[in-house]
Amino acid sequence: MNTPLRVALLGLGTVGSGTFTVLRNNAAEIERRVGFPIEIKVVADLDTAKARQVAGPEVEVSANAFDVVTRDDIDVVIELIGGYTIAKQLVLAAIEAGKHVVTANKALLAVHGEEIFAAAARKNVMVAFEAAVAGGIPVIKSIKEGLAANQIEYVAGIINGTCNFILSEMRDKGLPFADVLAQAQALGYAEADPTFDIEGIDAAHKITLLSALAFGMPVQFDKAYVEGITKLTKDDITFAEELGYRVKLLGITRRTSEGVELRVHPTMIPAKRLIANVEGVMNAVLVKGNAVGPTLYYGAGAGSLPTASAVVADIIEIARMNAAPIECRTPVLAFRSEAAQAIPMLSIDQVVTAYYLRMQVADRPGVLAEVSTILAKHSISIAAMIQHQPSQEGASAQIVLLTQRCVEGEINQALAKIEALDSVLDKVVRIRVEDLS
Amino acid sequence: MNTPLRVALLGLGTVGSGTFTVLRNNAAEIERRVGFPIEIKVVADLDTAKARQVAGPEVEVSANAFDVVTRDDIDVVIELIGGYTIAKQLVLAAIEAGKHVVTANKALLAVHGEEIFAAAARKNVMVAFEAAVAGGIPVIKSIKEGLAANQIEYVAGIINGTCNFILSEMRDKGLPFADVLAQAQALGYAEADPTFDIEGIDAAHKITLLSALAFGMPVQFDKAYVEGITKLTKDDITFAEELGYRVKLLGITRRTSEGVELRVHPTMIPAKRLIANVEGVMNAVLVKGNAVGPTLYYGAGAGSLPTASAVVADIIEIARMNAAPIECRTPVLAFRSEAAQAIPMLSIDQVVTAYYLRMQVADRPGVLAEVSTILAKHSISIAAMIQHQPSQEGASAQIVLLTQRCVEGEINQALAKIEALDSVLDKVVRIRVEDLS
Repeated sequence: MNTPLRVALLGLGTVGSGTFTVLRNNAAEIERRVGFPIEIKVVADLDTAKARQVAGPEVEVSANAFDVVTRDDIDVVIELIGGYTIAKQLVLAAIEAGKHVVTANKALLAVHGEEIFAAAARKNVMVAFEAAVAGGIPVIKSIKEGLAANQIEYVAGIINGTCNFILSEMRDKGLPFADVLAQAQALGYAEADPTFDIEGIDAAHKITLLSALAFGMPVQFDKAYVEGITKLTKDDITFAEELGYRVKLLGITRRTSEGVELRVHPTMIPAKRLIANVEGVMNAVLVKGNAVGPTLYYGAGAGSLPTASAVVADIIEIARMNAAPIECRTPVLAFRSEAAQAIPMLSIDQVVTAYYLRMQVADRPGVLAEVSTILAKHSISIAAMIQHQPSQEGASAQIVLLTQRCVEGEINQALAKIEALDSVLDKVVRIRVEDLS
Repeated sequence: MNTPLRVALLGLGTVGSGTFTVLRNNAAEIERRVGFPIEIKVVADLDTAKARQVAGPEVEVSANAFDVVTRDDIDVVIELIGGYTIAKQLVLAAIEAGKHVVTANKALLAVHGEEIFAAAARKNVMVAFEAAVAGGIPVIKSIKEGLAANQIEYVAGIINGTCNFILSEMRDKGLPFADVLAQAQALGYAEADPTFDIEGIDAAHKITLLSALAFGMPVQFDKAYVEGITKLTKDDITFAEELGYRVKLLGITRRTSEGVELRVHPTMIPAKRLIANVEGVMNAVLVKGNAVGPTLYYGAGAGSLPTASAVVADIIEIARMNAAPIECRTPVLAFRSEAAQAIPMLSIDQVVTAYYLRMQVADRPGVLAEVSTILAKHSISIAAMIQHQPSQEGASAQIVLLTQRCVEGEINQALAKIEALDSVLDKVVRIRVEDLS
């Protein structure tokens, strides 16, 4: 009973060294839970000098992760290298060698998840990835197990801390996007190349995984609609506020009678919703089940120790379930693989939501009538409106509208007609609005 | 593999009928997760006519729960009767007969948990109670498994919806306690005899369970400090607001170098904290781990279907783990029983927190000097102050103070001296303040 679980740690960057720290600092507490120790047998990193510094003299350091993943004295491989290429090869090699795998690599799983999970099923090993979504928040476990009694209706999450920091600062300080991005980079909240974060790709990886877990279907990143925060202006954030809303980058996946929506985009949420008050780099995921109603999970979505908290929770679970028959495990995507369903994935045109529309118009009578006539022809109702008088004589005016819920395809057609009007001077700015009540 | 798990449902009240509904309505989804059906074999309720109405013609109805719990064709007993007496006998009889037990009964477990868990350990059966704390929110699973990598530092929760509803309404509408209580009773949010809720006893049952789970120690309800919300005035709620705080009934358990705090009382929290914005009957639990930092879990803390969501999640877990070796289970109180620790429990005198103090004083010079001199002698620093001028000439004035953190024993001594001053006209009102940052 006291045989340790032997783990190999691949990659000693931010999350890798955090994982090392948590396993070491909380070893006694973890053994009180599990009944035997979790032993870091070997760490692998190309930078062996740095690895040696983190790992200390007692732990073996290797520069060759491929050698490590096939070793007989390893039970679990922790992949914390990131990226698609080497990480994928290592994960597949570890699975082939019969090792359980823990990873924080959302990009890898969102894109190659099906291949990896199929390989794991063939070899009867566990693949765990709590750390891949929302850092230390145990939202994957909550969806897979805590809410297992429910049919999940939707999941909506603030799952990219960089974007949430930028949007919080834009609102708080009234600064434009570019200034806050530079500040986020200086603080280490945004990378030198921030594309994956600010263009919504990282959030899309994560919501793709949650979508598969929520609805019992394959991981389908290629079906996600992805729109980042780079085009948001402080004007729109101010108007949102005036209307009683906050703008957040949300990953949303919803099951409707037509199929499954899977999308990432800036979203206006009523300011009084709890999730609208999640500020800075923090993450939060709202999950609505048909029995439980709305539930929310909040915490640090990134960072060395918070992400390590999730990695180590997965290791503990594997330590416990290592000796259990395979059918006792919670399936890797929450539903048994033979019960996975090919649910239709909806395109963004088919999504039903409400809209914030801001248009720059000529300051003359009749413009609003023209615009509202077009909307009415497409059966789009107006829920609220702000019209700002131009600051100078003869300047253009702004019309800001909130619509009722409608199909995105309809709004696209209506906007094409509105943008073709002489009196509408520029492309209409559009932000989707979700009530999340 | 397709043999169903056979459950007996004891008690068809609010949660019992919700459990029946969830198991029936979500049966297909649950079987997609588990791989075999969960079958309600028999329901037991003294009111067999009502039970028959809920259960329909296909399910056996019994008036004798004691017969049911020992039947050979039952794998799991779901105790949803409530109370200490019959429920305890039934749970122990079920365990004795080798049945796994699921219960939502926090009162039973907070008071008799040790006896019940010991009996379950002897018979190698599982006892699951996610529904006993915070209704449908999977906070017990999160503490036991999701945050298993952490040393938990504290848990602070809004875990009584009745009290949170009352406090939200008092603040929102400026109404006194008694009026809102009557309204809560009319709405069904408070019982005819609301003592358990409004005196904090229900919250204390729940935080006692979370405390044992968080720190790996026995369930010790008798060590909890319990103070309800019945003495809160709308004045204090208004002053709190003026100081940037909200008043919530919190269950708090914290591990310090001295031992474990376990307490329920009205608490002022900075208004900008997420948990301060949990309104109405909703629940939320803040859990701080040494790796993950603060995390928060939010959702419906009561109600038929939300609570049933947690009951059925436990049944699903038992369905999965029924065939696993015992050592693969997560221990009932998160830590292996042989690793449970007798950590010193701190009395309320030993608790360290900050205080809101309101005192009615004679409107004459020097009163504040007298009060602050006494506080200084006890090394209690003042963090903020409001002094309201009396509305009429010669009337008494009010002093409102926020202190820095100090030991409760010190504040008690200081308050005794302050209350003995001629210029202090009444008992000092005291509300504990937690920063929860």
